[in-house]
Amino acid sequence: MISGFPELLPAQRFAELAVLDSLRRTFELHGFAPLETPAAESLDQLLRKGEIDKEVYVLRRLHADDDSNDSGLGLHFDLTVPFARYVLEHAGHLEFPFRRYQIQKVWRGERPQTGRYREFTQADIDVVAKDELPFHHDVEIARVMAEALSAMEFLPPLRLQVNNRRLMEGFFAGLGAPDVPAVMRAVDRLDKVPADVVTKELVDVAGLDAGQAERCLALAEIRSGDASFVERVRALGVRSDLLDTGLDELAAVIGACAGIDQSRVTVEADLRIARGLDYYTGTVFETRMSGYESLGSICSGGRYESLASDGKVTYPGVGISLGVTRMLVPLFQGGVLTASRSVPSAVLVALADEASRPASDAVAQALRVRGIAAEVAATAQKFGKQIRYAERRGIPFVWFPGRDGRPDEVKDIRSGDQVEADAATWQAPENDLHPQVVTEKVES
Amino acid sequence: MISGFPELLPAQRFAELAVLDSLRRTFELHGFAPLETPAAESLDQLLRKGEIDKEVYVLRRLHADDDSNDSGLGLHFDLTVPFARYVLEHAGHLEFPFRRYQIQKVWRGERPQTGRYREFTQADIDVVAKDELPFHHDVEIARVMAEALSAMEFLPPLRLQVNNRRLMEGFFAGLGAPDVPAVMRAVDRLDKVPADVVTKELVDVAGLDAGQAERCLALAEIRSGDASFVERVRALGVRSDLLDTGLDELAAVIGACAGIDQSRVTVEADLRIARGLDYYTGTVFETRMSGYESLGSICSGGRYESLASDGKVTYPGVGISLGVTRMLVPLFQGGVLTASRSVPSAVLVALADEASRPASDAVAQALRVRGIAAEVAATAQKFGKQIRYAERRGIPFVWFPGRDGRPDEVKDIRSGDQVEADAATWQAPENDLHPQVVTEKVES
Repeated sequence: MISGFPELLPAQRFAELAVLDSLRRTFELHGFAPLETPAAESLDQLLRKGEIDKEVYVLRRLHADDDSNDSGLGLHFDLTVPFARYVLEHAGHLEFPFRRYQIQKVWRGERPQTGRYREFTQADIDVVAKDELPFHHDVEIARVMAEALSAMEFLPPLRLQVNNRRLMEGFFAGLGAPDVPAVMRAVDRLDKVPADVVTKELVDVAGLDAGQAERCLALAEIRSGDASFVERVRALGVRSDLLDTGLDELAAVIGACAGIDQSRVTVEADLRIARGLDYYTGTVFETRMSGYESLGSICSGGRYESLASDGKVTYPGVGISLGVTRMLVPLFQGGVLTASRSVPSAVLVALADEASRPASDAVAQALRVRGIAAEVAATAQKFGKQIRYAERRGIPFVWFPGRDGRPDEVKDIRSGDQVEADAATWQAPENDLHPQVVTEKVES
Repeated sequence: MISGFPELLPAQRFAELAVLDSLRRTFELHGFAPLETPAAESLDQLLRKGEIDKEVYVLRRLHADDDSNDSGLGLHFDLTVPFARYVLEHAGHLEFPFRRYQIQKVWRGERPQTGRYREFTQADIDVVAKDELPFHHDVEIARVMAEALSAMEFLPPLRLQVNNRRLMEGFFAGLGAPDVPAVMRAVDRLDKVPADVVTKELVDVAGLDAGQAERCLALAEIRSGDASFVERVRALGVRSDLLDTGLDELAAVIGACAGIDQSRVTVEADLRIARGLDYYTGTVFETRMSGYESLGSICSGGRYESLASDGKVTYPGVGISLGVTRMLVPLFQGGVLTASRSVPSAVLVALADEASRPASDAVAQALRVRGIAAEVAATAQKFGKQIRYAERRGIPFVWFPGRDGRPDEVKDIRSGDQVEADAATWQAPENDLHPQVVTEKVES
């Protein structure tokens, strides 16, 4: 295996596919259209925003005439840059507001470490419009991703943390901060350095006095799963129109997510979330997975005033990106998530001897036409061996075609129960039809 | 768009997803497990078989310390090399015979031309075993791919052509050919050069006399959708044990596919198919799409005695690879295949004014929990404009939430019919639930 390029065993891949299918289902129910862009973009596009820190992989043809001569192409390092390029390039064929989801691999030539991969899958949703995008789409994006996450009941509890850059900027400005961006940068470091270091930076670099700095830290401490954060912010005694707008927006997002099953996904206002160094202008999102906080945020995003622009039209957007690989691979490696079996087959059709293979094939085919995945034993070993073969693969049922006029029989190899059955009518229990995602509690 | 990297519009992507879903369903019904390998492999692996003609894309990190220093990684150019590496690396965790399907992008830095892409999706199925793989798996692979292709009723008619290298080699040897591989190479050129050029090569290079050469060409002319090819081969008067084995094997493959819907996929013995320069040893497959013969084979494969070997264990296999992009992109470009709409939404919930957005959201959510994809109008324009917005996206239904105690109504915008409806019980017609793949006959 190549370092940083995770590779799954078949049962794990089943679990990953269950995640991708579930995401796709939720996104489509909300009207998001599927999109896929090439793995490669021109280096011009990839480096357009000066994102040279993303460790782009450049493509070079092995037989390029001049060995030093790259193709001018690189692998995309996220799905936002390709989406922005797509919107500009195909604007004439798209209807706006345009909702899309995009589930694809991305690549970064970073040093591999826990939770960081060189190849990983992201699942992005964005809404983009021409010139103006109403705020209610921020609410929509939060709601859709919270619903998508809560639909995957096999995941550890998740915490979707929402904040609003207008709220923060309005607060800092209302406080009288001489350099709002400097305050933002200092606050953004709160989850990396101790509070007193941030306080010192707020005073020494951002030019606040001790009281102002204290109130900035007090703001960052506020967290609530309902609209009660509004009063707590107001209690800090800062006033500004921008702050009011931010408070209204954040309260709307939190309120709209009230229907989400809170045992799986907690949606909360967390006024520490800044995503300060990104290009977000309003709502911002981060997400933590319970027990895996060291991974950092596994699902982040927000509102951006200009996803793309062709000079005449500007395309504002709001979106969020789930790090599927970052979320799943630690669960696979920890042995807490897998699938109930490593093959799709629900039934192994036994084989009495090679001459009766057509009869066994006919049974398997009768099951398949009714949606029951089946395989026929590879060789006519003793039935005991065929049963153990099914056991090793986790196939729940072994089917014995009847001989000499006797009826077929099917054995549930977990219970040992064996009953007469007809391949044209027998139904597998719903939970046995497809491999199920299973979780195992690991002793800590 | 980058030359050779095809990119689809949303409706086309729906059609592509329908193809991928359909393939996956058939493969899983037959017990094939999903597998995905990283996009990158070590260059050692990629070039192991001396396949320097595949135009590998080498990866270089933009910030590599030494600019000329590649990462030692390249993008895979097929799914067979990664699968062979996977089998060796994970053999201890796999149960054999191992059936897998793998649907992924592959990359080749070739000169782009019709039907040739630099990035394209392949769908591979293979069965691999330890040391020995019974012949019935050749039958299985043919049957599964024929069934998978015939399940996609929106494709042009397809012709799955099967031959057998043992049959050919046995025939050439039985004929007394002094250099069987040279005969194979000459015959393999039959679809590229005129028959008299091949005849000349058979005589001048492969050392046959005129009568022998004539019988080789006569063999290559034989084609049948049933076992009648056997008698026509025998009528050429050549005898050898290897020929008998090949005839039996080919007859078994053709016979097993008799149940496939012949109006969609014709499975036939075609004794011209050689795949001469590949590593196949028994059954070989190619596939032509009616009306698109210039694309060449869109789905090829066969039996190979050694997919991989670790020096102690050899892993023989049989497999076939469908060129999804090669098959679909010409259909998209020709306008003969697309989807019925460009968004997943079956319903647009209208919006009387911004204040009633929560009520419209509630209707949409009531539809979604019952599996009906819905979106709410972006702005409270006049209803006529909202209906035209739905029309432009192909959304079949517009929902009008009731006001002042009146019931909701839903309009089928194709017929104009508008009826009272309840979001908790209304059902969309089955064909309107999801975008459907649609075909359009293009005048030639």
